[in-house]
Amino acid sequence: MADPKQVAVVGASGFAGALAAAIVARHPSLELAAVTARSEAGKRLDELYPRHRVSLELEQFDADRIAERAGSAIVGYPHGASAPIVAALRERSLKVCDLSADFRLELGRYERVYGDHAAPDLLGEAVYGLTERHRDAIAAADLVAVPGCYPTAAILALAPLMEVATDIVVDAKSGVSGAGRAATETTHFVAVDENVKPYGVEGHRHRAELDEQLGADPPITFTPHLLPLDQGLLASCYVTPRSELSAAEVRELFAEAYAGEPFVELADTPPGVGDVRETNRCRIHATVEPATGRVLAFAAIDNLWKGAAGQAVQDLNLMLGLPETEGL
Amino acid sequence: MADPKQVAVVGASGFAGALAAAIVARHPSLELAAVTARSEAGKRLDELYPRHRVSLELEQFDADRIAERAGSAIVGYPHGASAPIVAALRERSLKVCDLSADFRLELGRYERVYGDHAAPDLLGEAVYGLTERHRDAIAAADLVAVPGCYPTAAILALAPLMEVATDIVVDAKSGVSGAGRAATETTHFVAVDENVKPYGVEGHRHRAELDEQLGADPPITFTPHLLPLDQGLLASCYVTPRSELSAAEVRELFAEAYAGEPFVELADTPPGVGDVRETNRCRIHATVEPATGRVLAFAAIDNLWKGAAGQAVQDLNLMLGLPETEGL
Amino acid sequence: MADPKQVAVVGASGFAGALAAAIVARHPSLELAAVTARSEAGKRLDELYPRHRVSLELEQFDADRIAERAGSAIVGYPHGASAPIVAALRERSLKVCDLSADFRLELGRYERVYGDHAAPDLLGEAVYGLTERHRDAIAAADLVAVPGCYPTAAILALAPLMEVATDIVVDAKSGVSGAGRAATETTHFVAVDENVKPYGVEGHRHRAELDEQLGADPPITFTPHLLPLDQGLLASCYVTPRSELSAAEVRELFAEAYAGEPFVELADTPPGVGDVRETNRCRIHATVEPATGRVLAFAAIDNLWKGAAGQAVQDLNLMLGLPETEGL
Amino acid sequence: MADPKQVAVVGASGFAGALAAAIVARHPSLELAAVTARSEAGKRLDELYPRHRVSLELEQFDADRIAERAGSAIVGYPHGASAPIVAALRERSLKVCDLSADFRLELGRYERVYGDHAAPDLLGEAVYGLTERHRDAIAAADLVAVPGCYPTAAILALAPLMEVATDIVVDAKSGVSGAGRAATETTHFVAVDENVKPYGVEGHRHRAELDEQLGADPPITFTPHLLPLDQGLLASCYVTPRSELSAAEVRELFAEAYAGEPFVELADTPPGVGDVRETNRCRIHATVEPATGRVLAFAAIDNLWKGAAGQAVQDLNLMLGLPETEGL
Repeated sequence: MADPKQVAVVGASGFAGALAAAIVARHPSLELAAVTARSEAGKRLDELYPRHRVSLELEQFDADRIAERAGSAIVGYPHGASAPIVAALRERSLKVCDLSADFRLELGRYERVYGDHAAPDLLGEAVYGLTERHRDAIAAADLVAVPGCYPTAAILALAPLMEVATDIVVDAKSGVSGAGRAATETTHFVAVDENVKPYGVEGHRHRAELDEQLGADPPITFTPHLLPLDQGLLASCYVTPRSELSAAEVRELFAEAYAGEPFVELADTPPGVGDVRETNRCRIHATVEPATGRVLAFAAIDNLWKGAAGQAVQDLNLMLGLPETEGL
Repeated sequence: MADPKQVAVVGASGFAGALAAAIVARHPSLELAAVTARSEAGKRLDELYPRHRVSLELEQFDADRIAERAGSAIVGYPHGASAPIVAALRERSLKVCDLSADFRLELGRYERVYGDHAAPDLLGEAVYGLTERHRDAIAAADLVAVPGCYPTAAILALAPLMEVATDIVVDAKSGVSGAGRAATETTHFVAVDENVKPYGVEGHRHRAELDEQLGADPPITFTPHLLPLDQGLLASCYVTPRSELSAAEVRELFAEAYAGEPFVELADTPPGVGDVRETNRCRIHATVEPATGRVLAFAAIDNLWKGAAGQAVQDLNLMLGLPETEGL
Repeated sequence: MADPKQVAVVGASGFAGALAAAIVARHPSLELAAVTARSEAGKRLDELYPRHRVSLELEQFDADRIAERAGSAIVGYPHGASAPIVAALRERSLKVCDLSADFRLELGRYERVYGDHAAPDLLGEAVYGLTERHRDAIAAADLVAVPGCYPTAAILALAPLMEVATDIVVDAKSGVSGAGRAATETTHFVAVDENVKPYGVEGHRHRAELDEQLGADPPITFTPHLLPLDQGLLASCYVTPRSELSAAEVRELFAEAYAGEPFVELADTPPGVGDVRETNRCRIHATVEPATGRVLAFAAIDNLWKGAAGQAVQDLNLMLGLPETEGL
Repeated sequence: MADPKQVAVVGASGFAGALAAAIVARHPSLELAAVTARSEAGKRLDELYPRHRVSLELEQFDADRIAERAGSAIVGYPHGASAPIVAALRERSLKVCDLSADFRLELGRYERVYGDHAAPDLLGEAVYGLTERHRDAIAAADLVAVPGCYPTAAILALAPLMEVATDIVVDAKSGVSGAGRAATETTHFVAVDENVKPYGVEGHRHRAELDEQLGADPPITFTPHLLPLDQGLLASCYVTPRSELSAAEVRELFAEAYAGEPFVELADTPPGVGDVRETNRCRIHATVEPATGRVLAFAAIDNLWKGAAGQAVQDLNLMLGLPETEGL
């Protein structure tokens, strides 16, 4: 069997997959063994992404051929399409980090949101890959479901507050790379430029991850907005506390929750997504609004890094016993 | 005394003042009598704003010389600096629309937020210039305080819901023109581009207008964010209703509140600020989040139009007995 | 036969067609009789373009039904697809402004660049719709070929210099709306944002228009670049003069060429595309580079206005005997 | 004397200085010994640039205190202000890479463009730091003048063509970070957004570097443009060849000139600045325009990396005998 440090990126033509391939290629302890893509096979990855400088040729996916060369895989397929790929890789004993939603939810919740699941038997072994909350389980796992970009920021902003929260509103804002590489009316430059717009207001799929990870009590209002920028995601969280809290008490909750975390950065002032661009960090500022006593928590990430590919490599580092921050 | 249809724009070198001058210059019933500016006097306005094509020369402000030629004025000075200018113009009987905060609040609230007031005697005659709420008073007024950009969007989104609201969060997003023409670290292209950031989280001045206009019960959480775009403002409002409301009931509240309003546009889908760019309209979508029952109301405006200069001309139309939509 | 002031916009779902419909709808002397679209028929135009506020329903194109209601048409189809539509409308005696390339070139040149022509018999009656050069012919025409966006800016910048030029380089820069409404890899926000890139370097189709209008001597180097902005086009033209010219002499050439032109604006400093955004103007600055004696001429337009829909209405005004600037 | 691998960044609060500090801080063989700034002293660098994560405190410049701790320096002062700082550091035997223009030109040319020189005696020892042209001299130098951003891209695009060129036009386009961190009318977001504009058309200072490095025959037309993006610079070069050249011959000239160059990337298609964002590479595409025989050469760099801070570290690597690509 191939060495787990030989990593395949399956579905490497999308934004997150391509970045995962680039991070693996530069990683001191990992080697990029193969990259695959459905419709772009035959091209070199650096024809699609000159900036990443990964000159491997994209292959058609073939589980056996991948398993010969790679002991681990990062899978960058859309939800639904991902589960069978993951199943094929797990059958061949590869360790897998899956960027899709297919292994993030319990079966019932998945079916309500996404429909039928192609590999429900694997749900039992899948671990939700938010390192700050499931580090030990990730280190022991063979299959990790990399969190969605919105849940990553929102959960990191909300987790320290869940015990004191009676009401939660998450107003989230994302750059366009989060919408994927498909050219659509929504991702056309002219539709996004000089614009900002809420979407999915009647129910965005990422809400299910918030419920699964944080519980449904109190229920969480969640509204995403599309912004005229490339990479970056901000979750602005408004939390009504059970009883009055001072700003110092709020800061203390976060300081305790994230002591020693290498990729969580607590800031004295509100974060901008530019502060974490092209990094794997989540920058958080939490305080109390004097006029209302409401707790405000703002978390900024790069949606392609901590919200996808960077988090995947962080997970893989843990799964392979490497230093968690290596290559990031 | 000069004809009130002869309009001076006092403080025309800022973004809102310059746009007000351009709208007046093209207005079929108004004439642009004079434009003034403190530091740019001597230049033609179209040297600063070629696109507006207003070739009048900027003068130093002189109340007597203005009063000889103009019977109305739109004042574009910063708060604090505006009140004495307005007082000088009112002494000379000009009708005034003031773009600053100086006449938007009752004295006590003003002093708590902005400090001393230079013309408190005029507060009694000032009317808050949100036409959709104070149309008759504006029509009878000689001094109108044009609302702030954030309050304009937030109040229009919230007003129909105030009777049913028990809790309110306003997450607002604005383009950079709202920060004014001064070149600062905050308005530098590199600081804004590819970024989004909350600011004023411990208390933005516009909150006082929300309190003054909507009442302090329930208290309103208000957080503005700066976006990488030029003109446009979105208020995303999250309202907990006293009792369960259907989406249809919410739509009905808005349909009643804004029946016949020429500049309020109720939409079936969430508005983008691009939908109202360079117009005086406020586009609103209100619905109910199925998972929580929370009422969501989104209002998009162009901060320089309905949020400043366009609103000022709408007010002036009413004050002069002209059709409310003329020139807009 | 329908009144020529009743105008149909055929192919109104693209950026230029939709803007043409909006300009016609607001035009004091024209009436928007019908709007058509191939794939979006059945929708109201303001569902696609809320900002334009044109609530007409898009129809499938049917020449007879259009001819019943409209005496003129602006056609917004792609090249190749446009010629048969124009032929059908001309058969029914409508006056036509065509936004495509189909009637801009003589037959041989068209075939070399675009392939077969579907209505070559109409080429004889077609007039190139650059008003500043062909005003009288346009006024007498029934079929006008609206110039391409790049040629509009380049020709206006170069025409006054052709007699003195021995060498010409045009480095042109356009916003993304010029690439049309189709969602492609090229128009994806992530491909354009924070980027600038030359394209068509081995031969862009618009070069043929430059040759046709300006002659092939001297040959013109022409390279377009795609910019991260929505609307706006700048042609930077570098012209080697036959003999030494002073900056004053160059300015004089332009002043003579464009005396009295309502939409050409000669500026003392280099134009930005922001100076003409959402206007039908072309703003030009011409000077001489001291170090080399080279003549520099910069022309900025809004590619959707003077580069397409605005120019079409300017042409239509002339064709219908209306004031050239009406509605613009 | 301090170890030359102990590096001070003097003037670290500007964009290029701050990036230089960040690159040095992450460099495997260098250590960031000190950072200084004139007006921001006392702040930590990561307060100004959270993304760079350099937590050193900015000091007031004091040559003696720097010399105690650092054996090399990268100087990020404006031209004019830089020369005395460099002189003070050279007196104390530090190796210096200067980001300003102060040591890029021979004295006469400097005085004509910038005025008096504060340390003319040092000009003799200064080497122009474009590694691809002066590698050996840089390796032996104690004082390197890091090239300007425009000359870097233009010289790399033009150098292989100088022997065959009879006429040269350089149309250059830069993001706003090239204009520096000062908040001015020019760098205000609203001035840049949705705009593109030529500037310095009567003579930009960087032309002098082109003349100095490439010779004045043929004279070079050079026009910079400001683009609505943060980091990135494209030089579009139009070169008339002495005699006809094929595209293959042009490619061969570049292949020879840049064989083995680690940071020059020859591409088969036109480069975008996004292809090199946040890298030290220069990506070049050169070809021949079929219609005219003109040679087209496009060079894209990140103006803060290869155009400033990255190039400085590349120079420093050579000066210290380290691998040229280390840390980049």
